[in-house]
Parts: sequence; structure tokens; C-alpha cells
Amino acid sequence: MSGYDDLAQHIGELNDVLNAISILKWDQRTQMPSGGARTRGNQLATLSRIAQEMFIGTTTARLLETAEAEVAGEPSESYRVRSVAQTRQYYEIVRRIPMQVIADMAALSPESQLVWERAKKTDDFALFAPYLQRMLDFNKALADAVGYSDHPYDGLVFEYEPSMTASKLKVLFADLRAGLIPLLGRIVANDTPLPVDLWRHTYDIPKQKAFALEVAQQFGYDLQRGRLDIAPHPFEVSFTREDVRITTRYSDHYLPMALFGSLHETGHALYEQGVDPALTRSALTTDFLGQYAVGGTSYGAHESQSRLWENQIGRSRAFWVQHFPRLHEYFPEQLAEADDELFYRAVNRVQPSLIRVEADEVTYNLHIMLRVEIEMGLLDGTFQVSELPEVWRSKMQEYVGVAPTTDSNGVLQDVHWSGGGFGSFPGYTVGNVMSAQLLAAAHRDVPDLDNALAGADYAPLLSWLTENVYRHGRAYSASELLQRTTGQDLTVGPYMTYLTEKFADLYAFTI
Amino acid sequence: MSGYDDLAQHIGELNDVLNAISILKWDQRTQMPSGGARTRGNQLATLSRIAQEMFIGTTTARLLETAEAEVAGEPSESYRVRSVAQTRQYYEIVRRIPMQVIADMAALSPESQLVWERAKKTDDFALFAPYLQRMLDFNKALADAVGYSDHPYDGLVFEYEPSMTASKLKVLFADLRAGLIPLLGRIVANDTPLPVDLWRHTYDIPKQKAFALEVAQQFGYDLQRGRLDIAPHPFEVSFTREDVRITTRYSDHYLPMALFGSLHETGHALYEQGVDPALTRSALTTDFLGQYAVGGTSYGAHESQSRLWENQIGRSRAFWVQHFPRLHEYFPEQLAEADDELFYRAVNRVQPSLIRVEADEVTYNLHIMLRVEIEMGLLDGTFQVSELPEVWRSKMQEYVGVAPTTDSNGVLQDVHWSGGGFGSFPGYTVGNVMSAQLLAAAHRDVPDLDNALAGADYAPLLSWLTENVYRHGRAYSASELLQRTTGQDLTVGPYMTYLTEKFADLYAFTI
Repeated sequence: MSGYDDLAQHIGELNDVLNAISILKWDQRTQMPSGGARTRGNQLATLSRIAQEMFIGTTTARLLETAEAEVAGEPSESYRVRSVAQTRQYYEIVRRIPMQVIADMAALSPESQLVWERAKKTDDFALFAPYLQRMLDFNKALADAVGYSDHPYDGLVFEYEPSMTASKLKVLFADLRAGLIPLLGRIVANDTPLPVDLWRHTYDIPKQKAFALEVAQQFGYDLQRGRLDIAPHPFEVSFTREDVRITTRYSDHYLPMALFGSLHETGHALYEQGVDPALTRSALTTDFLGQYAVGGTSYGAHESQSRLWENQIGRSRAFWVQHFPRLHEYFPEQLAEADDELFYRAVNRVQPSLIRVEADEVTYNLHIMLRVEIEMGLLDGTFQVSELPEVWRSKMQEYVGVAPTTDSNGVLQDVHWSGGGFGSFPGYTVGNVMSAQLLAAAHRDVPDLDNALAGADYAPLLSWLTENVYRHGRAYSASELLQRTTGQDLTVGPYMTYLTEKFADLYAFTI
Repeated sequence: MSGYDDLAQHIGELNDVLNAISILKWDQRTQMPSGGARTRGNQLATLSRIAQEMFIGTTTARLLETAEAEVAGEPSESYRVRSVAQTRQYYEIVRRIPMQVIADMAALSPESQLVWERAKKTDDFALFAPYLQRMLDFNKALADAVGYSDHPYDGLVFEYEPSMTASKLKVLFADLRAGLIPLLGRIVANDTPLPVDLWRHTYDIPKQKAFALEVAQQFGYDLQRGRLDIAPHPFEVSFTREDVRITTRYSDHYLPMALFGSLHETGHALYEQGVDPALTRSALTTDFLGQYAVGGTSYGAHESQSRLWENQIGRSRAFWVQHFPRLHEYFPEQLAEADDELFYRAVNRVQPSLIRVEADEVTYNLHIMLRVEIEMGLLDGTFQVSELPEVWRSKMQEYVGVAPTTDSNGVLQDVHWSGGGFGSFPGYTVGNVMSAQLLAAAHRDVPDLDNALAGADYAPLLSWLTENVYRHGRAYSASELLQRTTGQDLTVGPYMTYLTEKFADLYAFTI
């Protein structure tokens, strides 16, 4: 045994298994005939068990010790040192996880999700409540096993956002709330409907796909290492940087769904395709539950890239000045009444609504804040499961200004909790805030970036992001990436500036 | 540990890994972006190693002993007894295989295939000869490790056709040769060109696919557990009976390529979809090299089903009387000059040619005979690698009546040897011969089968094949299946009767 290379080889083989799991899941969600579900479950369970055993077995311990000795004198910023340290950190945590809890959650999950679907359909929260309680209990046990010093949520959010804690999230959302709620009030006060409804037309789906892929490739998505498929719940997935796939879903009327969905997943894909080749197979890419293999460093860092390319680029006026003429060539009749400015306004209209996944840029984080407060409150005993419908209604009214009349449109709307996932919601907001910090830093560093973007030249931006974020893979945490590029940890300033300037212009008020 | 169930669980997990390998290969051949090739190779290598370790490790030995004790008093025909015995047989063989030889073959294979492609393109056998020699040496070592009493070929053909040996194959081909060569002579003497060339038209590919899938479903292919994709080298693959996929390739002129290709793969798929649920995951489904997981019992048994549905059903007059009108609805202009009888004749024309994969039903087995004689001769020293071009030319002239002027159209035409595969060719002919024996037995057992087929009712035939062949999976060998259904081992009689009657009618001569 010789040290780092042997550890890298072992982690590489672990990643081979994790990537095989991801391929099986991609197939399941995009290609698999329905009859294959049960035996696909067997295959996934067996590969997950093998991956667990490969990671927490004695081989990893032995290789870690040798590798740690070998890299001991190397620069602390080197990929080698950071990879070894990260592997050690995860190894120690994963060994503490009670695998029976993970297995029990996985076993309850299909039934829990079925009950949740039925409860949502029949607006019957009481039906789902016992399952939510059991999932909450599992998550409490998980948080205890992972460990935390302040709040049990710290032990869960670590899985998705290692640099985040409950106390940091409270500050983050307090800052956002202070800016977002007044901003939303001014927007709503100034809102007037658009003169035409562009979504009453029919948009041919192959043409929608062709346009989205044109833009994705202009952003820099490499189709020699990627592809776009249909999935009912769209996602991006990578099996190393050499094979990074995206999915979307189509409405033949509501053009923005597939278009912005594709640009969102393209942002994720650019991150994965940009990971340094040295890190794509041999560096640890798993979360500690062994459920996914991802090259990017956290949910929030990943979401910062999907949001940046979807919203800050794809929903900008400069983008539509450049790209509307091409979209018009695809859909001359449907867009006969529109110009770039009308289209830009149509895809940026702010409307407080009940449903998170339909929310605009301004209200989206308020939906997230509500969920994170509920997750924290369930874990620390502020709320009981039975109180959630009422908590949901009152917080929606307070934050977004609308409240659901049914639980189906309220506390039952998201799938996350039925599968046992607690702690992933903060990533969405971390991503939004982080995207604005990174884009501001890119503007500071890249000469004439505005001119490049106004000319639909995305190479300078992609190059800056690759150099400062993508290539590092998981070598730096989201917090470290921000400090290296902006000199600051996560902070809401640039994001609130971005939103305020954009929507003050769109809704004609002065800041 | 409790016996059979624990062994079945262990083999089930081995099959999960083998099926995951098959999914990765399916993806590689039908979906994967080209850039993913290198890291896909890593994933396949790691999973193959894991599967090997799972099978030849001490766990299998311990579980086998307990299971053998438990099933000792049970009926010798039971699936439990047969599964345990088959697992023991393969376990003992696999433990003898020198894994270094397998690894060396796998390592040489990509380079060898590249060199073969170049040699084929430049008509340069000498370029490929050293690689063929090394692959031959690997195969000699493999045959020695597996063991044989008579001919080294026995140790290789076992991988694909466990009930076959060199001596049985010599008898089989001698019998075929005695019938086929005179039959071919009479056909060639009576041949006249067809009045019109149907393949000068353009056939829309989505319509080709729709028609092929209609027929596949009428045969009984269940699309809830299957799907049809495009692949440059078409194949069928199953990941348990619940997910059985087929592929084809399209020519926009030569309609028969995708059509009969699809029906061929449908035959394979019907076999896999028909395996008893008790055998689909928990019974051993691997060859001893751990390269594939297949529910059917041998290459030849599998090929018997692809050939039966493609040729004996799909190229029959009764089939086209029923289905030509529907095909005509898809392609009214292209088929304006044709009727069912002309179409039937067009897809059954016999033309001695140089290329195996383009061969008709009569000449096909002569191409196989040539290859099997060469494989045996290389192994027993009758031929040297350097003599193959000349051996090929003289045997082609003798058997098929035409001889290649280039090695590209001769000894270099097939991919098999460049990848190290020796011993798979007999399966094609075993399949042809077996298909006729099985169909004759079905006619004996199923009342009014002719009427059902003439009415495009394939359910009685599928039901007989499922009951007598498909459901048994690998519980019986090809030879045992034949003895159970026909009272005889493999014999050419029914196949020669089928060919002679069909082509005497088509070419207007008396038998």
C-alpha cells in the first residue's frame, strides 16, 4: 500500500458503484418500463449496501491512515490534502450513523409516499400525520447520531449544506425577510396585468426542446458529455464529469416550464462538467447516506449555479434582447403579438401564490423560510406535527400575503417529508443568495462582462465560474468558495440589490 | 443460515449486480453520450470485479453446503434441486478459471478490436494476425482451466452451449451439410429475379417502428416490461423478467432490416419475459465469466426463439397473408406494386453471398459451419492463424459456392474473435435446428395450431413455448428441454423438412 494513490483508487471504485446507482436511478426516472420497478428496487438496495460496506469497511480506515501520513507535509490547500481530510471527516460521521435507522426510513418511505399522495388528493392531513411523526423521529435519531452542539437541525442540514447551521440560517432568513417583505409589498401595489396572454397558444414540443438545447449549448453545456430527456420531476445527474445529463418536462402551452427548467438544469450540468478531471472519480463524491454521487460541493452551491443561469442570466433583459428573435423564428405565430420587452416582462411577473414550485424570484425564498422554520420547530419541539396545518396558514399569510384554504395546497404540497428528507430546503435559498454574490464577484473580476453578456457571449462568465467554483469540485465548502472569491461568507446584500434593482425597474418604482 | 433461501438471497444479490452491469451496457449502447466511454469502462470493471468476488468467495461455498443438505431429499426435477446443482457446477468451474487470463483478455480486447477494425478497413489480415494468435492462446488456457476430455473446444463451447461438444457439433454439421448443399443447388438452379424491387422506395422510420411494435405486441411482447430502442449492433437484454428491452437499427430503404431485426429480438424477449418469477432473480443467471445475466438456458436455446419468431413465423406465407394489408396501410405508395405473395417472396429470396449477417435461411448455417470448423481447427492444431485467409476462401467456395476476393469480406468480417470470444458461433445453428424441433412439437401438442397462426392468433404457440421452454429459465439445459418436449436430443430432421418444404414451394421444384 502506498498512500494517496491507493486511497484515491479505493474511493474511485466506491464512486463507480455510486455512479452505477445514479445511472440506474436516471434510467428508472426516464426510460424504465413501469414493470421494472420492483426488481430495480432490489438492484438499488444491493448496490447501496455494497457502497456502504466499501466505505465504512476496514479497507478505508487502513488506506486513510497511510494517505494521511503521506500528505502530512503538503500544502493545506492542495486537492490531495483536502480530499484526504474530507474523506476522513465523512468516514468518521458515516461510522456513527445507525444503519438500522437508514434502513427503517428507506423501508417506510414507499408506503409513506403513497399515503402522502392519498392525503394530498383527499385533503386529509390527519391521514399523513402519523407517517410524518415517524419520519420526524427517525430524523431526530439521525441528528443525534451525527451530532451537534447547538440545534438538532445542524446534524441534518450538514448532509446537504455542510457549512450551514440553524443559527446561521436564522440570521440569513431574518436578513432576507427584512428586505423581501417590503419589496413584495411595493411590487404588488404596482402590479398591472400584461396586455396579452402569450401562454394561450400551443408551442410544438420538439421546437421547445431544440431552442432550449441551443441556449444550453451557448451557455457551454457539452452534448458530447450530456443529453436532455423528459422526466415528470426534472433533475440533473452526473456519472463523473464525462457524462452529465439533464431532464425537463413540457407543457404545450406554458412555454416557460420546459425552457427555464432546462436552463436551470443546465446550470447544474455546467457545474458538474466543469469539475477538475483529477477530482471527478477519485475524490469522495458521496453524501454520508450513500444516496448520491455529486461533484459539486453542496446543495446550495449547486443551486447557486442553476439559479444563476436560469434567473440572473436566462431571465435578464439582456438575454431576451439577444435571444427573443431566435425564439420568434421557432414560434412566429404564437409570438406575433410579443417583442423582447413584453416577453421579458411575461417571464418575470411576480404573483404571490400558494405553491412553492410555481413561485417567482421574489416570493420563492419566503416559501423556503416557512419550511425551514417548520423543520427546525419540529426538531426542537416548538411545533407538534398536529399543529402544522395552522402554522402553515398563518405563516403563509404573514410572509407571502396569501393563505391556503386546503392542506393540499398548504402543508401537504411538497414530497420531501414523506420520503424522510429533512434539511434540504435551506439549499434553495442558500443557492439564490450565493448566486448573486458570485455573479457580483465575476463582474468585479471580468473586464466588460456586461458587454459580453449583452452580446450573448457566455464564455467569459463560464470561464470565471469554472476557475473559481466548478473545477474545485468538493475540495472547498460553499462557505470557503465564497470567502475565496468574495472575501465574505454568505450574505444577502448582493442578492437583495439584484432583486430590488430588477423589480424596481420592472414595476416602475424608485428604490 | 438456513439453507436454500439464504443461497437464493445471495444469488439474488449477485444477480442484482449482474443486472446493473447489463443496464450500464444497455445505456452505453443506446443512450450514453460518447464522452462517457472511459468512466463507463471504470464502472463496468468495478462491478464485474465485485460480482466475481461475490460468486467465488467463501460465502457461496458455505451457503451451497447448507442448501445442498437441505434439498438432498427433494425431487430431482424440482427447481430448488436443479438451481442448487447448477450453482455448484458453475461455482466449481469458475473457481478453476485463471482470473488473470480473463483480465488479460479484457485488457487486450479494446486494442485488438481497434486493430481488427483497421485491418478490415485496409484488407490487411497480417495486421490482425498477431492479436488473433494472442486471443487464441488465451482461449487455449481457458479451455485447459475449464477442462475437457475429448477436444479443447468442449471447454469453450460450454460457456455458451453447455450441452454441446466438438464431437456432437461435427455430427450436427455433417448432417446439415448433407441436406443443405443439395438444397441450395436446386434453389440456385431455379432462381429468377423478382419482377419489382420493393427496396428502391423510402420507408419512414417512425412508421417502420410502429408496425414492428404492433407485431411484437401481437406475438406477446409486453411493453409494460419492455421497450424498443435504436442500436448500431442490435441486441436484446433483460434485467430480470420484469424489464426486457430490445433494440434494432433502421434503413430508410431496406425495410426488412429493422422489421425482421425487431421480430428476431422480440423472440429473445418473449423467452426472457416468460421465465418463471421464482427463477428470475434468485436462480443463477450468469455465465462463468460473469459477463452477462440471462434467464434463458443457452445461446442456442435463446437463438431458437429469435429464429422461430423471426423466420418460421415472421417469414411465413400465413404471416404475410394476415399482416401485409396492415403494412400496406402504413406504406401505400411504396407497396403499391406488391401483394402479400410478392412480399413473402421478396423477404425469402435465397442468394449465396459472402457476408454472414446478410445470409438467408438456407445459406446461414453454412457460414456458421465454416467458422466452427476454423475455431476447432485452430484449437487442435489443424490450422495455423496464418493459413486462415486461404482456408476461408476454399471452404466458402466449397460450402456456399462463392469465395471472397478480399479478406475484409472473408476472414476479417466478424467482430467475435477480436474480442476474444471463441465458441459462440455454434449457438446460431443450434438455435435454427432447435427451433424447428420445438415448433414441430408444438404442432403435435396444440390442436389447430395452423389455424390459429393463419388467423394471426399467436397466444396458443406462446403459451406452449412458455410452458415447455420459457418458464424453466436455466433449470434445464437445451438438450434436456428438447428431450422433455420431443423425446429426442438435437436432430436436424425437422429443420431440414421445414427448409425443404418451404423452398421447394418458393422455387417450384419437387422434393
